[in-house]
Amino acid sequence: MRIAIYGYGNLGKGTECAAMAAEDVELVGVFSRRSPEKVKTLGTPVYHASELESFADKIDVLIICAGSATDLPEMTPALAKKFNVVDSFDTHASIPSHFDRVNESALESGHIALISCGWDPGMFSVARLYSSAILPQGKDYTFWGRGVSQGHSDAIRRIEGVLDARQYTVPVEAAVSAVREGKMPELSTREKHTRECYVVAEEGADLERIEREIKTMPNYFADYDTTVTFISEEELKREHMGIPHGGRVIRTGKTGIDGEHNHVIEYSLKLDSNPEFTASVLVAFARAIDRMYKRGIRGCKTVFDIAPADLSPLSAEELRAHML
Amino acid sequence: MRIAIYGYGNLGKGTECAAMAAEDVELVGVFSRRSPEKVKTLGTPVYHASELESFADKIDVLIICAGSATDLPEMTPALAKKFNVVDSFDTHASIPSHFDRVNESALESGHIALISCGWDPGMFSVARLYSSAILPQGKDYTFWGRGVSQGHSDAIRRIEGVLDARQYTVPVEAAVSAVREGKMPELSTREKHTRECYVVAEEGADLERIEREIKTMPNYFADYDTTVTFISEEELKREHMGIPHGGRVIRTGKTGIDGEHNHVIEYSLKLDSNPEFTASVLVAFARAIDRMYKRGIRGCKTVFDIAPADLSPLSAEELRAHML
Repeated sequence: MRIAIYGYGNLGKGTECAAMAAEDVELVGVFSRRSPEKVKTLGTPVYHASELESFADKIDVLIICAGSATDLPEMTPALAKKFNVVDSFDTHASIPSHFDRVNESALESGHIALISCGWDPGMFSVARLYSSAILPQGKDYTFWGRGVSQGHSDAIRRIEGVLDARQYTVPVEAAVSAVREGKMPELSTREKHTRECYVVAEEGADLERIEREIKTMPNYFADYDTTVTFISEEELKREHMGIPHGGRVIRTGKTGIDGEHNHVIEYSLKLDSNPEFTASVLVAFARAIDRMYKRGIRGCKTVFDIAPADLSPLSAEELRAHML
Repeated sequence: MRIAIYGYGNLGKGTECAAMAAEDVELVGVFSRRSPEKVKTLGTPVYHASELESFADKIDVLIICAGSATDLPEMTPALAKKFNVVDSFDTHASIPSHFDRVNESALESGHIALISCGWDPGMFSVARLYSSAILPQGKDYTFWGRGVSQGHSDAIRRIEGVLDARQYTVPVEAAVSAVREGKMPELSTREKHTRECYVVAEEGADLERIEREIKTMPNYFADYDTTVTFISEEELKREHMGIPHGGRVIRTGKTGIDGEHNHVIEYSLKLDSNPEFTASVLVAFARAIDRMYKRGIRGCKTVFDIAPADLSPLSAEELRAHML
């Protein structure tokens, strides 16, 4: 399977690592809108994005490693006109409209596209779907963290007087325990997660104002119990340079004549590197997309449409003999 | 979707409950090799197994609720000649030959069959496949319990002087912790699980001999740390009548340039009723089998071949909008 990477930030680099770890993947190149000489890969050839079209016959699946806010809504439909593509579009509310645009483009040009792949949306979505289909009389909960939220860290950095910041999303353990016990609690936003902020301020900045601006920021922090800790740039560099994340999807449900039996299904992830894990999911699903294209399947798909067997380099016989 | 149940033990009864809980399922009947008047369902009509053929046009999927040791190897290929079928064949080593026989029978008659559905094989297999495809540089572990093993309980009951018994399979917590920490330990059978036996002996029986016979029984107990506790029939009836089970599939793996980042994927189940949960899985997959048959798909399938979207009563649009 011949893969190329479009965009080379943290996710693009993670995808390069994941592709190198997969024995059946040939990495054709990294395509970037920056000058190729400024992009330092782990060995994969770098080309300018403008050269991409000339690779149309050399790439089976193009993995688009770009942001959901402004890049992917334009990029994925455009690139699906020329390539089979995979993206990690993660703005949950806009998935239906993104799907429609990508589907139209892929069907028109006779390609296949997978959107919203990764872990949430992605593997967490798959966990929600399996468990809700199995336990229709039940309720599911998604907890994120402990992990770094890039979006929330960026929001803090935009405050006047802030030099740098890291924000951790932390699940409330009491809420996780109540869910696991099958109590099916109604949980508010505040009861599910807390937010820990580590902030490097400019010398002489008004720390009280910064803390107040963080804690009252609508959508990002106002609905949460938020703690703000001011640290030095050295401490930030020493203690907070990783990009860990994770979380869990828990569904509890009842079966029996009168719902007398309780069941708990839990899917959890503990990740040292959020972008490298997301990239590993993208590469596994790119394998499925390549196979489905060769079977004649076209149009936009999501992780829900992919049979697990298509993700594995092993044959159907090997899977049945060793993994079932 | 019109479903019928073949066989009415614990699993058959669980399937009746699960089918009643699914809004899109019509339960056509329970078919039994016993006299219908001796089978007490929760309301579903009961027919003798010999009447099954006359229902050929009235059943979309037949769920076979019978044992793997002697029943399913004969039943599933035979029934796949007349019906779309789902079974829970769980003798891992014999899955490839069972698959071949069922596949031949289903292809010849133009039906679809799903074998080895449930939670292990079944959802645990799916968890192993997803996580190994995502983290190729890793290792997975399956722990079962704490839960009742029917096979081990039966083995104890066959010992002279034993009136009744319950055997619990218990995971070794230290092993689970070592796996979660990403140490990728090599674990022997003894290091992964212990076995707890609760035994009701005949009055005057030689308890020391019974305990020795249990602990030295090859395959079942000899390779495990086993504890034997003699209890009264009353205590057994009071404390040990449930059929709880569960377990977890954990895969740890590495990503990055030099495998410098660790990741843990864990899928766990905690079940009050093993047969009712298994039955809930069977009904969800029966929905997929019905849809795939209507799309023209024939032959034998496993859980690996089923796209998650086909398990849910929700439409593709609803799934993308609310579950992705």
